[in-house]
Amino acid sequence: MTLAPWQSPLARALHRNRSLAHVRHVQLATVRQDGRPANRTVVFRGFLDNTNSLKFATDRRSEKADQIAFQNWGEVCWYFPKTREQFRFFGELILVDNEYPDPTLLKARKAQWHDLSDPGRSQFTWSHPKKPRAADDESFHLPPPEPTEPLPHFCLVLLNAIEVDHLELKGDPQNRYLYQRGAAETEWTVQEVNP
Amino acid sequence: MTLAPWQSPLARALHRNRSLAHVRHVQLATVRQDGRPANRTVVFRGFLDNTNSLKFATDRRSEKADQIAFQNWGEVCWYFPKTREQFRFFGELILVDNEYPDPTLLKARKAQWHDLSDPGRSQFTWSHPKKPRAADDESFHLPPPEPTEPLPHFCLVLLNAIEVDHLELKGDPQNRYLYQRGAAETEWTVQEVNP
Repeated sequence: MTLAPWQSPLARALHRNRSLAHVRHVQLATVRQDGRPANRTVVFRGFLDNTNSLKFATDRRSEKADQIAFQNWGEVCWYFPKTREQFRFFGELILVDNEYPDPTLLKARKAQWHDLSDPGRSQFTWSHPKKPRAADDESFHLPPPEPTEPLPHFCLVLLNAIEVDHLELKGDPQNRYLYQRGAAETEWTVQEVNP
Repeated sequence: MTLAPWQSPLARALHRNRSLAHVRHVQLATVRQDGRPANRTVVFRGFLDNTNSLKFATDRRSEKADQIAFQNWGEVCWYFPKTREQFRFFGELILVDNEYPDPTLLKARKAQWHDLSDPGRSQFTWSHPKKPRAADDESFHLPPPEPTEPLPHFCLVLLNAIEVDHLELKGDPQNRYLYQRGAAETEWTVQEVNP
């Protein structure tokens, strides 16, 4: 598959900001079941092989998984402090849970589970997110789960952008480029717009 | 007015991360008119005097201003890289434009305009955000506007949180505290929840 034209400036930003430990921390906005917005930090897990789909991981028991199941649109905001630039990825989200029908994506889910660190996998043994914390909860001190088989509530999340908005604050005055996807997944246009 | 109980951990995070130039850059999620989410970086401008209202600035011509006018809920996600903690502020947004009926907030809008830097104020002389950029656009090279009188499309934005979600990634395993506002604006409860 052809790389989208925004892949090149994104790769450059990742490279120039690589010294920052949190460079892959981005903010994912979704919509709650009552139509109000939600927003939280998630970790960018790279691209699905040979595609332009951004990968993330989540827990099926989290509110964001329910939100995505209800309304599958999202916007990821990615700010790079060192180069003072922002990418916004607006598009459809795919929640790949353990019953997802596509075998290729199920395989990608398994691979993503394998790629997590032990502490990353351990989070999925913890008690239900956002429920009251019990002082003696043993779930937070279990050995890490096996890397070979994902726990049932582990989900891979994909974002397929239809619009990417790239803002460079360092320009004179600033530079802003709008990438928009056409009918075909590989068909992108880019336009310079006012910041 | 009584300070909300989340003000103290937030002030601590701001202090501990003060060496980072981008410490006041946060991500604001809103909802588009078609019910899909939007997300972008905005600059935290402090609190409205003697209140728990977070202040931001925006341009009435921007999409986010239209979104707030249409659906006035937002969630701000604030990640502090140095201390590895996140605050999420979920609540109602108030868009204070030049015709806002409350004189106290109009005065706060004027004060916020005054507090901006010259480059900050200059952005409001620029041509319409997100429209195609013209090569010879003179609007990007005008002298900065007067600090005494806000340009008509300058808006102050307030966020009145009803829920603040504080996550500390450094805990063992992690610590998460949920602050919820009661019926009265000064009535907050806090509960420790599972991360």
